[in-house]
Amino acid sequence: MMQKPLILVTNDDGITAPGIRALISVMKEIGDVVVVAPDSAQSGMGHAVTINNTLTLEKVNIDSDIEKEYACSGTPVDCVKIALGQILDRKPDLCVSGINHGSNSSINVIYSGTMSAALEAGMSGIPAIGFSLLDFSWNADFEQIKPFIKKITLEALKKGVPTDVVFNVNFPKLKFDEIKGIKVCRQAKATWVENFDKRISPHGKEYYWLKGEFVNQDKGEDTDEWALEHGYVSLVPVHFDMTAHHTINRINTWDL
Amino acid sequence: MMQKPLILVTNDDGITAPGIRALISVMKEIGDVVVVAPDSAQSGMGHAVTINNTLTLEKVNIDSDIEKEYACSGTPVDCVKIALGQILDRKPDLCVSGINHGSNSSINVIYSGTMSAALEAGMSGIPAIGFSLLDFSWNADFEQIKPFIKKITLEALKKGVPTDVVFNVNFPKLKFDEIKGIKVCRQAKATWVENFDKRISPHGKEYYWLKGEFVNQDKGEDTDEWALEHGYVSLVPVHFDMTAHHTINRINTWDL
Repeated sequence: MMQKPLILVTNDDGITAPGIRALISVMKEIGDVVVVAPDSAQSGMGHAVTINNTLTLEKVNIDSDIEKEYACSGTPVDCVKIALGQILDRKPDLCVSGINHGSNSSINVIYSGTMSAALEAGMSGIPAIGFSLLDFSWNADFEQIKPFIKKITLEALKKGVPTDVVFNVNFPKLKFDEIKGIKVCRQAKATWVENFDKRISPHGKEYYWLKGEFVNQDKGEDTDEWALEHGYVSLVPVHFDMTAHHTINRINTWDL
Repeated sequence: MMQKPLILVTNDDGITAPGIRALISVMKEIGDVVVVAPDSAQSGMGHAVTINNTLTLEKVNIDSDIEKEYACSGTPVDCVKIALGQILDRKPDLCVSGINHGSNSSINVIYSGTMSAALEAGMSGIPAIGFSLLDFSWNADFEQIKPFIKKITLEALKKGVPTDVVFNVNFPKLKFDEIKGIKVCRQAKATWVENFDKRISPHGKEYYWLKGEFVNQDKGEDTDEWALEHGYVSLVPVHFDMTAHHTINRINTWDL
């Protein structure tokens, strides 16, 4: 690639999160960076999009090297939409989302604002990668995984992310030299079992906190959960054609 | 089935919407109905889940025939989670979501609160169907499509929705006898092209409304868009394994 690639960076933990700052620092070594990220934490927003409310965009200058850096009042998906529709003059060569503070492996891809932003870019024909570290803490050590992020990103730019596919990359909470390598995986078949903490407000009204327990009954050694538990970085290619093609013939035999 | 099926009904337009009322009226002919739906409109919420805030549940009695009817302060996905975790004594035999006021065909399945609620039920092992009518108006004529909803639901209960699959059913805005039948389809490959309406507030601050234009370049006659345009009900089986399995071998050849 002769020209430096144009890279859109977003996340769901908010524009000031250390995770996106680490991701920006890696992307600056690779291309021209534009940042459009939520002005506040947007975890668990899934593919939510703001249609019944307005959006604001604030130009910020958290990273003095970056000319175009914006905080958006909306969801991660809104950030990608407004970046493409309002801020960028041309389609970016890549969109990266993260680094999420916490896992987006397995079924979490569906709940994840980080991955929904990457999917939204993918849906617009932009190669996209979501990065997540299995450490929820604000001061998670992103330095350990930066070399892997650079390697994956450069290889994706060189080889080309397959059409209509987005990468979901998760990192185990390990030191750089403890990480065994990168495994291309399928999404483990795991779920959250609902669990609520019921409380009473000072005004006598019941309310609930969602807790939930992550249950993985998938023993497959080709899954992202297996890779992460065994010290590997997981890379799951995900797509947004949700059709269960394999069931169409069967349902066609129904009396409909 | 000897016992009457237990049916959980939810939606994303809010518990008072005519669409969910129409769906409840059909389900009452089929089984024992429990309603847990958002207390306000939640369109475009995708698979958002409330993790950084509390939830409230209010017992309501909009339909005097129904013993368990609740308005929840959260998203459609929250409604399904709290129904399973807090309200129901046993797993329902079916979850239906809708009838959405407006289309959830093609790529809209990803943005849709209606379909995300159905997917959430499916992820918990519950057969689930989302229903949507291609009419955004509050006074849409749901009577025309009730016989189709009953037929699809009874057949799904009889034959069994395939494991890990959820049905996305969309209805054209037609009279009952104009509808040509039900077609099992794949999701059309269409997208939204971003488009923003930029305005200035009375206080001089810029803000944006997301507009967007739906663009379908998929000419396939096996798609939901084709079916709906040609007077058919579309039924797309969707799944929540987002892995692009067909690309794993190719990415395994990369230098990672």
